[in-house]
Amino acid sequence: MKRIYFDNAATTALDKEVLDVMLPYLTEKFGNPSSIYSYGRESRLAIENARKSVAKILNAHPGEIFFTSGGTESTNTTVSAAIHNLGCRHIISSEIEHHATLHSVEHAHSKEKIKLSNVRLLSNGHVDMEHLRELLANSPERCLVSLMHANNEIGNLLDMHAVGNLCKEFDAIFHSDTVQTVGHYPFDLRNTPVHFINGSSHKFNGPKGVGILYVNENVKISPFIHGGSQERNMRAGTENVYGIVGFAKALELATTHMDEHSKYINDLRMYMMDELKKQIPDVGYNGDLYGRSLYTVLNVSFPKTEKSEMLLFNLDINGICASGGSACTSGADAGSHVIRAINSDPNKIAVRFSFGKDNTKEEIDMVIAKLKEII
Amino acid sequence: MKRIYFDNAATTALDKEVLDVMLPYLTEKFGNPSSIYSYGRESRLAIENARKSVAKILNAHPGEIFFTSGGTESTNTTVSAAIHNLGCRHIISSEIEHHATLHSVEHAHSKEKIKLSNVRLLSNGHVDMEHLRELLANSPERCLVSLMHANNEIGNLLDMHAVGNLCKEFDAIFHSDTVQTVGHYPFDLRNTPVHFINGSSHKFNGPKGVGILYVNENVKISPFIHGGSQERNMRAGTENVYGIVGFAKALELATTHMDEHSKYINDLRMYMMDELKKQIPDVGYNGDLYGRSLYTVLNVSFPKTEKSEMLLFNLDINGICASGGSACTSGADAGSHVIRAINSDPNKIAVRFSFGKDNTKEEIDMVIAKLKEII
Repeated sequence: MKRIYFDNAATTALDKEVLDVMLPYLTEKFGNPSSIYSYGRESRLAIENARKSVAKILNAHPGEIFFTSGGTESTNTTVSAAIHNLGCRHIISSEIEHHATLHSVEHAHSKEKIKLSNVRLLSNGHVDMEHLRELLANSPERCLVSLMHANNEIGNLLDMHAVGNLCKEFDAIFHSDTVQTVGHYPFDLRNTPVHFINGSSHKFNGPKGVGILYVNENVKISPFIHGGSQERNMRAGTENVYGIVGFAKALELATTHMDEHSKYINDLRMYMMDELKKQIPDVGYNGDLYGRSLYTVLNVSFPKTEKSEMLLFNLDINGICASGGSACTSGADAGSHVIRAINSDPNKIAVRFSFGKDNTKEEIDMVIAKLKEII
Repeated sequence: MKRIYFDNAATTALDKEVLDVMLPYLTEKFGNPSSIYSYGRESRLAIENARKSVAKILNAHPGEIFFTSGGTESTNTTVSAAIHNLGCRHIISSEIEHHATLHSVEHAHSKEKIKLSNVRLLSNGHVDMEHLRELLANSPERCLVSLMHANNEIGNLLDMHAVGNLCKEFDAIFHSDTVQTVGHYPFDLRNTPVHFINGSSHKFNGPKGVGILYVNENVKISPFIHGGSQERNMRAGTENVYGIVGFAKALELATTHMDEHSKYINDLRMYMMDELKKQIPDVGYNGDLYGRSLYTVLNVSFPKTEKSEMLLFNLDINGICASGGSACTSGADAGSHVIRAINSDPNKIAVRFSFGKDNTKEEIDMVIAKLKEII
């Protein structure tokens, strides 16, 4: 059975070209980048070149880019730094953040007595900017605003500039979880009012286990992981050299082909949406599909029936990979906290299809045919 | 110029067999282990099989093994858990720990007002057990004792059983940084009185960027990195699947060949020591070379002269990789905190040669010939 992979928001296949640049660092170039001899300095150089490449693509300074073990560690670092280095005693976030944010800020709330507020969401899932202003204006304490750039389940896109400018007005720190958009959208960080963003290369055809944290040069933070002096004393631990090299190459490839891929993927998404509407009765969509929305994600709601409740299971039996929500929580939760928060119809079953450059219309036709059979 | 790599305590070459088991997870098997469809479950299975294999080799329960991004993250997790989950308000450590421990405990001291004591060291660099008993006996607060199993610079081996039993007597938590010994010594954790140990596969011919934390089943801790429910809710972030698979394979290979390799490597070390003594005047050794000592490390002290001060530089020019101390600090510090702490002769230059299974006597002969030229 041929597998159809429609879960690219969970993880993506590693590009052959990315693996090719990683392989030397998995074989002959194994030196420790912190060693002072030339063999170690070769590894160091590979890391610094990766940093420069990433910085250039995001229009940031190399000194603002730190390599981590992934998006989650980057978010944890941000929350810790906002509290311990930047004097934030109030975190404003939302109910539809990724669990990396939700659980980090809950931990800060319960263990460090940080005040926690959720910004109200509009019915289309977007942030209520008036409420955000209100929360900021009424906070006697410095705020960390942590709002994701693109929601990983329903695809809603945040207006980072609008939120960043509002944060500026109230001297708040702004973190945006950009795990779903780094490698999928152009960034111009020198001209974006944001203090922290994070990325994870396995979301854009790079390796797992490696991420970045961007820290705006105007904020000074201390490490989250203490130890050796790696990453200019900011993140201890022997560097995952091949992963870092892979991150940079994946971002380079994703950026080079961004226009072409984004159009292609968005067309796939719109094709699936149209065909579903034509062929399956009573389907709906979660999120702001026609508005500010990630081109990779289509969150469909199917009427709840005995059959549709087994939908993911039946798709799986037929070799189709799709998800009910974030992979990071699928083992643990019943249902999606995002879908619950935007108060979608409880009589619907939500399924996220998320697309990548290797998907095709034929695959969509096959999935829709299968969905008609199942439902 | 042929490179001679005598810095295996800093990092090691990845075994071809390890890369071979990693490659499928870098190519076709890219599913997210948290996804519920069968393709994701294949990745989950790979992780759980890796965990079982590691647990079996260390004689631990699979539920006691957690995968992390490396030894440093594991140590940070331990220190945080000891304070926040296990009620430790006093940390007893030593001046010759790796910076992962030193800086974690310093952070705990400065930010969380945790009392910090360093156990006295004997002149051979071993822990003064009487002083350790005294510190424990006089502590009104619960202690975390963090003492490394093998020192990464001078190779001294701790008697884990003796320290663990002492900790038991005083209801202290015992962490041993075993980064230099996992993969190099047999472990029997079910019969070792230790609460936490950590390992890093790049120290035993496995991949960088992946480590383990062993947490004894009798202690319950909460995550250090918050987010998704990976690692049974203990370590959030999409798993580095290929790294985890590589960790387990590297440990399996290292264990299978441990007797043979340890004898071979120890013979190399003793050969180098004997030849140095014969051929170079006034060399000395740091650490307990003839006693409890790691078979991979030879820390040599050379008389300080204008020439020997440039020793590492000149070795490097000749393609010889050796180090002045830990790689993790070599970029930052002048001199080794370990050598300073054991109060070696300030008129000596310390150089660490550390060996692996791929080194040869011929390489040692070449290095000694070069050393004679340089000095």
